[in-house]
Amino acid sequence: MRIDTNRAVELIDITDDVLAEVYKSSIQNGICLVSTTHTTTAIIINENEPGLLSDMFNLLNKLVPPGAGYNHDPIDNNADSHLRAMLLGSSETVPIVDGKLVLGTWQRIFFVELDGPRQRKVHITLVKNVG
Amino acid sequence: MRIDTNRAVELIDITDDVLAEVYKSSIQNGICLVSTTHTTTAIIINENEPGLLSDMFNLLNKLVPPGAGYNHDPIDNNADSHLRAMLLGSSETVPIVDGKLVLGTWQRIFFVELDGPRQRKVHITLVKNVG
Amino acid sequence: MRIDTNRAVELIDITDDVLAEVYKSSIQNGICLVSTTHTTTAIIINENEPGLLSDMFNLLNKLVPPGAGYNHDPIDNNADSHLRAMLLGSSETVPIVDGKLVLGTWQRIFFVELDGPRQRKVHITLVKNVG
Repeated sequence: MRIDTNRAVELIDITDDVLAEVYKSSIQNGICLVSTTHTTTAIIINENEPGLLSDMFNLLNKLVPPGAGYNHDPIDNNADSHLRAMLLGSSETVPIVDGKLVLGTWQRIFFVELDGPRQRKVHITLVKNVG
Repeated sequence: MRIDTNRAVELIDITDDVLAEVYKSSIQNGICLVSTTHTTTAIIINENEPGLLSDMFNLLNKLVPPGAGYNHDPIDNNADSHLRAMLLGSSETVPIVDGKLVLGTWQRIFFVELDGPRQRKVHITLVKNVG
Repeated sequence: MRIDTNRAVELIDITDDVLAEVYKSSIQNGICLVSTTHTTTAIIINENEPGLLSDMFNLLNKLVPPGAGYNHDPIDNNADSHLRAMLLGSSETVPIVDGKLVLGTWQRIFFVELDGPRQRKVHITLVKNVG
């Protein structure tokens, strides 16, 4: 799935896209892997509340400040984006039970842009359990 | 699986429950996904040593202090719980080989309560490899 | 797979080993789980650029400094290694599509030694999708 991001850092709620893929498949039980192929993006699951999303970027700014003398910066000037991606992780996996993605009431799946804006890709991989 | 947590923050060792699910299934080779459906809990794998478990919460207190002017706090007063959950992740996946969960000597699977006490749910999803 | 690490902290690029396992298998579509069985190591995916790899250890030193009065240290003197492993996570999962591991241009899979040097193990688990 292609995603065009609009800002340097951005949380994009892709839950509906993932739900649509699960619905289109014939899978009743299994797992759904949501992954990114970039080294300055991440996938997380949490609540879609604008204040919380801004808190998340404020926290990353505090823990991994931009331009803090990183050795990677002379090469590409985005060390902080890579380091934040490492902390958040490049994928999330969610169960599928009785044809439905097992997400809690407040759980939403986010693509996390950490070095945008860019054209990005997200992979949704479904695995059927035949056990 | 239902879990009743007892404290605001708490690490609950659920390894034996996961092992029992793997044993009950007929799966010889595959994977086991342990996931939470909440946005203020997490799943981690590490050693079950009480000192280390307290170190973990002390670290979270330092990295993501409670009540640090978060934008989400006027809504629900638990931004730190959400942010800690994002850092730790909502699931872990473990291989199953020859009918057994592949855990190292010191590895234990923990449900991490970050905004308790509450009634919580953990999902254990097994996927058989037929390859 | 056995890995002999050479330093206290070290990032070892195991991408080629993982690619070889996927190639050897007959799996066209599915997922590949790369996991560690130790509580002071981790698996991450990011770019293999030496400056960035040093930045990553500098960040861990800042966020989780060694010997900071941890309760686990009187027992084993490696609390920082455990805590860093918790933040990074013990596995990564990557899609397999048309017989190939879905990695982006800059994505490499790393075994992260956080308490070496030691003999370590990494598990590569492939699950075929028959859906």
